[in-house]
Amino acid sequence: MADLDVTDLHGALTHRALNSMNFLNEVAQHYPDAISLAAGRPAEQFYAIEDLHAYLDTFCRYLCDELGYDEAEVRRTLFQYGRTKGIVHRLVARNLLADEGVTVDPDALVITVGCQEAMVLALRALRADDRDVLLAVAPAYVGITGAARLLDLPVLSVAGGNDGVDLDDLAAVVKAARADGLRPRACYVMPDFANPSGLSLDLETRERLLQVAAEQDLLLLEDNPYGLFPAGGAERLPTLKALDTERRVIYLGSFAKTALPGARVGYVVADQVVGHPDGTTSLLADELSKIKSMVTVNTSAVAQAMIGGKLLQNDCSLVTANRRERATYAANLRALTDGLAARFPAGEITWNVPSGGFFLVVTVPFPVDDTLLARSAQEYGVLWTPMSHFYDGDEPIHALRLSCSSVTPEEIEPALDRLTALIRDQL
Amino acid sequence: MADLDVTDLHGALTHRALNSMNFLNEVAQHYPDAISLAAGRPAEQFYAIEDLHAYLDTFCRYLCDELGYDEAEVRRTLFQYGRTKGIVHRLVARNLLADEGVTVDPDALVITVGCQEAMVLALRALRADDRDVLLAVAPAYVGITGAARLLDLPVLSVAGGNDGVDLDDLAAVVKAARADGLRPRACYVMPDFANPSGLSLDLETRERLLQVAAEQDLLLLEDNPYGLFPAGGAERLPTLKALDTERRVIYLGSFAKTALPGARVGYVVADQVVGHPDGTTSLLADELSKIKSMVTVNTSAVAQAMIGGKLLQNDCSLVTANRRERATYAANLRALTDGLAARFPAGEITWNVPSGGFFLVVTVPFPVDDTLLARSAQEYGVLWTPMSHFYDGDEPIHALRLSCSSVTPEEIEPALDRLTALIRDQL
Repeated sequence: MADLDVTDLHGALTHRALNSMNFLNEVAQHYPDAISLAAGRPAEQFYAIEDLHAYLDTFCRYLCDELGYDEAEVRRTLFQYGRTKGIVHRLVARNLLADEGVTVDPDALVITVGCQEAMVLALRALRADDRDVLLAVAPAYVGITGAARLLDLPVLSVAGGNDGVDLDDLAAVVKAARADGLRPRACYVMPDFANPSGLSLDLETRERLLQVAAEQDLLLLEDNPYGLFPAGGAERLPTLKALDTERRVIYLGSFAKTALPGARVGYVVADQVVGHPDGTTSLLADELSKIKSMVTVNTSAVAQAMIGGKLLQNDCSLVTANRRERATYAANLRALTDGLAARFPAGEITWNVPSGGFFLVVTVPFPVDDTLLARSAQEYGVLWTPMSHFYDGDEPIHALRLSCSSVTPEEIEPALDRLTALIRDQL
Repeated sequence: MADLDVTDLHGALTHRALNSMNFLNEVAQHYPDAISLAAGRPAEQFYAIEDLHAYLDTFCRYLCDELGYDEAEVRRTLFQYGRTKGIVHRLVARNLLADEGVTVDPDALVITVGCQEAMVLALRALRADDRDVLLAVAPAYVGITGAARLLDLPVLSVAGGNDGVDLDDLAAVVKAARADGLRPRACYVMPDFANPSGLSLDLETRERLLQVAAEQDLLLLEDNPYGLFPAGGAERLPTLKALDTERRVIYLGSFAKTALPGARVGYVVADQVVGHPDGTTSLLADELSKIKSMVTVNTSAVAQAMIGGKLLQNDCSLVTANRRERATYAANLRALTDGLAARFPAGEITWNVPSGGFFLVVTVPFPVDDTLLARSAQEYGVLWTPMSHFYDGDEPIHALRLSCSSVTPEEIEPALDRLTALIRDQL
């Protein structure tokens, strides 16, 4: 038999990042009756199948009415191979203007198969040889760490600290890497309600981060899946891209949380100018598009039509489209933090109170690992995520992540009761 | 400004494979009035927007009636994040049984974002270090060459010869590579109506190829986008996977030509057993799934629903579903070869007469390059593909590829008149 040994396959397959997702999914499947404070998926109670039909119709009408396509062109657009950089680029540019106040040339956009492909394209482009490294603010989303491993791009951790990013550490990590002959290409950061920390950068930190990046000649990879979900009256802050005056930010966009994950549509804004040996220039988006042509050819037109239709039905504003979802997440987040406060008045454990998003972090006086999660699922009936999945290295991590996005309000109290029982049994 | 130089980006960006597609697309866009014998896209006259709505409804009914999902589960399946290996795996397994006579464990399938992602997953898994190389039968589809470059996996050419693959050369290339300290992992081959050669392997060559692969301990990557399109009464031959008794074939499947490219849904059959250091085993499909989780997370559920619906509407047979398309391609292929015979009775040029598929190759007594294509588009009004795009190296290639798939019958005669004028002017 022509069978294989995993040691003869790509090294990423045995790396923790690629196995975390599987492990976490398997625990959830294994204990379907456990209440999940683990899943970072969006609320699904507002979805309706008939919306998919309506999105498709709305997008087809846009192709006819606004772009002037005849019937054959509409069919071709939906059924055939299409533009590598995508077909909803103008609508995404309108969305960025409406919701983020950012003016983007639609040609600087690549529509991708979810934000994950956007990361893959950007990291692949930036890895020229084995001196290149990526920086990522810790704790880091496992999708960026995993994508980097897959592309043989080492990741150096930058401390997150209490402000979401420790800028002194950023400068120190860059300096040390260069002293080792490495070439730090970019720093990955999620400035708004980060996964997993829940932290946001304040305005001053955003401005200083851009300044440090300029001083260190680093690109910033800004990932913003949760920015539309402030809670408790928090104001939305400008994205790094909105503050970026020198094309230093590659902006990674997702529609998974703001529209629907099942479309698998995301995007990257890559307006950097790329010089070529013959003296010509191109947009980084065009270089990413070449890579995309060899990864997925183009993003499914049918899937793009879903996002295009949803955008069109909401004047291209997803702030408007997510009014009910925003209220749901804010109420759930409040119920979680209030519920923790009611259950641990003596300060035996601590937690942060994020100003929005899907996640908060609970810090406990004992190590939290996958074994404890499995026990929590089996014996206590509650799921959460060990923070150890978001750190490099093997030191024990005394924290866990709770998610407020896909739990129902009725489930929160029993979920917290179960979590409390688990924690008290460890104290 | 934080701008970039292409020499600081991944080397694949300047490789021919990644620029071929762009160049060919640009020529087509630049000369929209030229008749295209270049495009390998499927015929589009049978597409109808209402089919997309019907596919979605059919798939939702299948989820309810056959899988027993309630309404909330159907919504969750379409809207949410889903199974990494896909949700139409059972239907694809039925399709493989119906159309190819192959029995596949649905768990050995990964549903991918088109066949291109299937290639990326397989090549990524098989590249453990820089000794690893891929073999590809020349002339080779640019998608495999490009994907390999993107993954830092060198490609060694195996001669195609007149039988579609030169088995002596295959053994010689493997031997020479091993002598150089390289590790040939797999050989990529398109046994049916290959792109770009139009050649098919006969049954004996298929059996001998499997035997040579076993002797050389090589995997085979079988790509089969065109197998359903025999012409002129040709019989369909068993795929390599159908003949494979030792899990030596990784089968790459596409729905772009047999259903619709706009869904971007393909798959890989990876039933190889992978051993792990702890003594456990997994399917190669599960390892590919881990890689997929870091490339695209999962294939769009909405896009999968389109393919699932189309399969369900045709008892999972795409042979049945493509009756009209098959007749169209066969008639066009015949019109091209008959038209060439009528125009060049004296044998000034030669061409092959494929037994099916989308492509044939015309051999001429002068070099054929991109400059000639640009002149053909501008001065003669006809597009085709220089065969040089499918070879490594810089030797001039005296051949061009014609495609019969997306031209209308009425366009074929004027297209051949224009091509004849170009060729006669070069003789």
